[in-house]
Amino acid sequence: MTLSERNTENNCQEEENQLETSHNKSPLLSDSWKPYQRPRAIVKEWLLKLRCCLGAVCGMEWYGYAALGILTGFLSFLMDLSVSKLLRAHQWLYMKLEGHSLLQFLCWTLYPSCICVVGSSFSHSICPFSTGSGIPEVRAMLAGFEMPHYLSVTNLFTKYVGLICTLAAGSTIFLGKVGPFVHLSTMVGAYLSKLCSLVQTNKKDKAAGEMMVVAAAVGVASCFGAPVSGVLFSVEVMSSHFAVKHYVPCFFSTACGALTFHLFSVWSGDGETLQVLFKTNFPTALPFYPLEIVLFALLGLLCGAVSCCYLFCHRWILQVIKTNPIFIKWLTTEKALYSGMVAFLLASVTFPHFAGQYMASKYTMKQLLTSLLDGRQWTSESHNASVQVDPKPWLEWSSSGSSVYMTLTFFLLMKMWMLVLACTLPVPAGCFMPVFVYGAALGRLFGEGGAYVLSGLTSGQQWASINPGGYALAGAAAFSGAVTHTLSPALLAIELTGQFSHAVPALIATVLANARSRSGHRPSFYDAISISKRLPHLPSLKKACPWLPSTPVGQVLGAKAVQLQKTAGLVEVQHAVNSCTETQIPVVDSHESQILLGFVLRPELLMFLRHCKTETVEKHLDEVCCIHRASVLLSPHNTVQEAHSILSLVGTQALFVTDSGRLVGLITWPEMKRILEDLAKEI
Amino acid sequence: MTLSERNTENNCQEEENQLETSHNKSPLLSDSWKPYQRPRAIVKEWLLKLRCCLGAVCGMEWYGYAALGILTGFLSFLMDLSVSKLLRAHQWLYMKLEGHSLLQFLCWTLYPSCICVVGSSFSHSICPFSTGSGIPEVRAMLAGFEMPHYLSVTNLFTKYVGLICTLAAGSTIFLGKVGPFVHLSTMVGAYLSKLCSLVQTNKKDKAAGEMMVVAAAVGVASCFGAPVSGVLFSVEVMSSHFAVKHYVPCFFSTACGALTFHLFSVWSGDGETLQVLFKTNFPTALPFYPLEIVLFALLGLLCGAVSCCYLFCHRWILQVIKTNPIFIKWLTTEKALYSGMVAFLLASVTFPHFAGQYMASKYTMKQLLTSLLDGRQWTSESHNASVQVDPKPWLEWSSSGSSVYMTLTFFLLMKMWMLVLACTLPVPAGCFMPVFVYGAALGRLFGEGGAYVLSGLTSGQQWASINPGGYALAGAAAFSGAVTHTLSPALLAIELTGQFSHAVPALIATVLANARSRSGHRPSFYDAISISKRLPHLPSLKKACPWLPSTPVGQVLGAKAVQLQKTAGLVEVQHAVNSCTETQIPVVDSHESQILLGFVLRPELLMFLRHCKTETVEKHLDEVCCIHRASVLLSPHNTVQEAHSILSLVGTQALFVTDSGRLVGLITWPEMKRILEDLAKEI
Repeated sequence: MTLSERNTENNCQEEENQLETSHNKSPLLSDSWKPYQRPRAIVKEWLLKLRCCLGAVCGMEWYGYAALGILTGFLSFLMDLSVSKLLRAHQWLYMKLEGHSLLQFLCWTLYPSCICVVGSSFSHSICPFSTGSGIPEVRAMLAGFEMPHYLSVTNLFTKYVGLICTLAAGSTIFLGKVGPFVHLSTMVGAYLSKLCSLVQTNKKDKAAGEMMVVAAAVGVASCFGAPVSGVLFSVEVMSSHFAVKHYVPCFFSTACGALTFHLFSVWSGDGETLQVLFKTNFPTALPFYPLEIVLFALLGLLCGAVSCCYLFCHRWILQVIKTNPIFIKWLTTEKALYSGMVAFLLASVTFPHFAGQYMASKYTMKQLLTSLLDGRQWTSESHNASVQVDPKPWLEWSSSGSSVYMTLTFFLLMKMWMLVLACTLPVPAGCFMPVFVYGAALGRLFGEGGAYVLSGLTSGQQWASINPGGYALAGAAAFSGAVTHTLSPALLAIELTGQFSHAVPALIATVLANARSRSGHRPSFYDAISISKRLPHLPSLKKACPWLPSTPVGQVLGAKAVQLQKTAGLVEVQHAVNSCTETQIPVVDSHESQILLGFVLRPELLMFLRHCKTETVEKHLDEVCCIHRASVLLSPHNTVQEAHSILSLVGTQALFVTDSGRLVGLITWPEMKRILEDLAKEI
Repeated sequence: MTLSERNTENNCQEEENQLETSHNKSPLLSDSWKPYQRPRAIVKEWLLKLRCCLGAVCGMEWYGYAALGILTGFLSFLMDLSVSKLLRAHQWLYMKLEGHSLLQFLCWTLYPSCICVVGSSFSHSICPFSTGSGIPEVRAMLAGFEMPHYLSVTNLFTKYVGLICTLAAGSTIFLGKVGPFVHLSTMVGAYLSKLCSLVQTNKKDKAAGEMMVVAAAVGVASCFGAPVSGVLFSVEVMSSHFAVKHYVPCFFSTACGALTFHLFSVWSGDGETLQVLFKTNFPTALPFYPLEIVLFALLGLLCGAVSCCYLFCHRWILQVIKTNPIFIKWLTTEKALYSGMVAFLLASVTFPHFAGQYMASKYTMKQLLTSLLDGRQWTSESHNASVQVDPKPWLEWSSSGSSVYMTLTFFLLMKMWMLVLACTLPVPAGCFMPVFVYGAALGRLFGEGGAYVLSGLTSGQQWASINPGGYALAGAAAFSGAVTHTLSPALLAIELTGQFSHAVPALIATVLANARSRSGHRPSFYDAISISKRLPHLPSLKKACPWLPSTPVGQVLGAKAVQLQKTAGLVEVQHAVNSCTETQIPVVDSHESQILLGFVLRPELLMFLRHCKTETVEKHLDEVCCIHRASVLLSPHNTVQEAHSILSLVGTQALFVTDSGRLVGLITWPEMKRILEDLAKEI
């Protein structure tokens, strides 16, 4: 038996003893009036044994990670199932009304409008924090700030139902799943970490933060069954430093999540085995010519430029919403009506007998992406239309009789403003998937155009077999990466399609698109929301005003913190306990010298008070309480950014700011939140 | 014109002005005796213009990252090319001697022995630091410690040539490329960052550390053309926190590296387009049954268990080498002879007319892996041997006439001790690839066995189409992951073969293997080397003795650092400047009170001395020099681990340790290195 095993066993026994003592004392079992005392004791005993057995294999937190993955995967599968049923119902109804244009129009427009109204009013009335993407809030929470409203179980339930409504409105509204799902996953994670800390007696404080990081990774992984890009997303979303100790839990949990998602899909009859979400038919022998890399790089730059335009419009509409009195009035009092009207407008525009026929509006999001990722050239195939071997997934793109170039261009132009408008809807909704599809369309247009030009220029067979699907893949990765300022979409695109041959081109396009869209400190999609909502998120603050996080701490420190001198008596301690809520209260040599000695913990002060009341002789603070040394000290010249990263790194509750040994102030997480929110107001 | 663009231009002009002034002053051009003054001035002007143009697009460091990727990719391609030529020469010679057993034996054994002797004596005589894997040293350097010997250009050259020798010795010696290549890449990175800081006038200090992190990622990526797993490797290898700002440079540089590696392969006629390194023929319709996940999990646990056994043997041999007087004598004085003898022994054992026929010793490493990853069942195919459609890549495994189970088992048993022995060779050599192949063999055996048992049990067609190649893939990932305590091999295996369908099984097997091999704080392969070499690497120290890094800093602080009082005069300053080499020298209130006021910089002290010598009235330190405030202070109760992470996070040169405002000591990187090396001695 190794040392560690022996330790585990000892721990196990100790915990059992502890629990038994507590269980003997616990009022639950000593209350003789409660029924079935004997069976309950037996069940409890068995549960304790089970816990001991489970604990012997690995730490309790690992079961938490596994449960997180499995639960999130199951939730994701269930959501996809309900959404697909709702979408099919809509399609069925629309088909049944064939021939009655007016009825078809009403079906096409009222169905998504009603669903949006339901979703919006439901989420608004039960939990107003559930609207929007959720990723900006998740980022702030991962940076260490507490936002308990965003992690409640009510919010979990509301966001889940609201998201189903949004997705069921389909490609007319054109909103996605990823962002809210990451938020959902963090809520599940927060709940599970509470559960874990109930079971685990020790290491309570660390677990919650770790579970949040893992949950962010699991959100993406379960959403698409893509484990690796989930972990990369979690790395990217961390504000400045990714703790390597989270790496293995992330991978473990995302593997569980992806596996659950895929297995449920298999068992529900969706396929014979685990498969990628979007099947493609790229040629395997020659995926692309080496020199096509240049074209992929150009596509990346193009995507970056278009993303800048999109982000500008998005920032503009965020500003309008906040300042325009009409918008303010509608969005505060008439949320449901506003959602209904916007949905109606979007749906009318996409009505298939109207402009919708030029933008393939009959396709769902999934069908859109599948058609765009098709491995054949649309134009060359439509030329020799006599070859009708297998169904053409892109049929809808040329159904109006106009050329695919026209349809794609019209789609891109229309969807730009529709996307910007849809983002203002007060429903739980993400923007990743729409942007991904938009990028795929951009890439497709580039690829089809490139194939046409090159085959015309070279007039040989060498470039005839160019695959526009590959450009759609790279475009999707590059555009979504540029909008969100992340690189994980490149890997996500590969994981969604399984086309590993295109990993290097997609990566190059994404890196270049990111370079283009990040230049000049432009904020990303999420940064813009963070700034607009004044969330305490340092990197987005830094993008908006690069000099703000370099403000010295001394300038922004709030009112002088409560402090005690080492000879403090009953009255001073009583006053300190009443006037502040912090757990660590600084102790100075004397109020004149202000030399910091250390801190006392709040429970010890309460003990001191009890002690003073029982004894007659008045004692000083340092005679009764232990004065703990402060571990890390800051100077007033440290910047806010340094203070933030040290606070998140050291993991203490409070940092003391001293100037030549004299106490100047105290930085806690709530204080840091206040500082960042104050700084955000200056923008 | 945006603000940033204007800034860039201003910077550009400023730099130009600066350079022009310096160039007017520079002795290089003012020396009239130097020839071709006019042409040199023109060239210099053009270079300045070029720099200005380049700088307008993006920061100079990005060119550095691109250059790093391209250079490393090219080096990797060149190495592969030379090694394959040398291996082919050996094979050709061996084939020519067909029929003369003795000559064949001599050719088989002496060729690798001689190459090993050459490699060993070459690297020993030119740069002794070039032997071994290099990853343990790279990890220590990434943690912030300076080890200039390991980054010299001489070392780069020696390691490159030595590594070619090692790899040319082939599968008889069974050593790999990854580890030394990561080291090579960091050397290239260090050189390039020096170059970059020559061109860039500002931000000198940061560049080096950033380039090292990127270089670690590029090493893996260029070695195999696998960009994503390179970045994951870099994340894993960082000791505790991965700075997210390195994320985009890593991806950019690895994409460049992978692209270069692949493009050179294409241009050298190795294929028509960018393709994976190891082509596989897995069935695409049904890669695996969902329930096979259980088998993959079992394989992961098996790999974990075997890896524990391997790591135990490895630790044992490291111990023997350090303590056994015979080994010590041989490895200090007779390195070349030792290498030759070990190589001869290994080669004799693998001689194809002797035991080699039972372990497919005729295959090179690449052929071994390709054969093991084959997508068909060896056993069922050998049953109906009449079907001879395409060549069987596993022919060598059953050439001796014995069953493939026997051959695989014999291979696994023999290679275990051969690998352990090969690791003692004093040549530049990695252990990742051998371990990867070993894992593939383990997985293959498991897969073939599983297929046999299951087809016997169920006697139906359902399990007949099980694919043992998938198990080989998962086994390779799991075993190499377990030996190195990393997860990136899972993704590497996918990137090497392009089989994305097996991502989830490979990941699950790797996570479980890691869980098994990490349990009980066992050190990894690299940790064992770190501990044996007493490198200042905190995580490996922690694995060997979990309580050591929790030692309070106060206990391990060295001799009292040099300090100045604020009223110090000429004599005291002179003494301080002579007796220490640090750049930041602490200043206290007085030698009695020891209250820390801040620090002065060394150049300012030198200025003070010059000042005192010119003036007649003696002045005090605080009247002439500016006393900088110390930003972050530690207390003696902080643990070594906390001090280490704060030091690496804050990026300052020195941390001051104070106790209630009084100076206790100073922690610099050299001091931290000393502390960790002292702690390592206690193990």
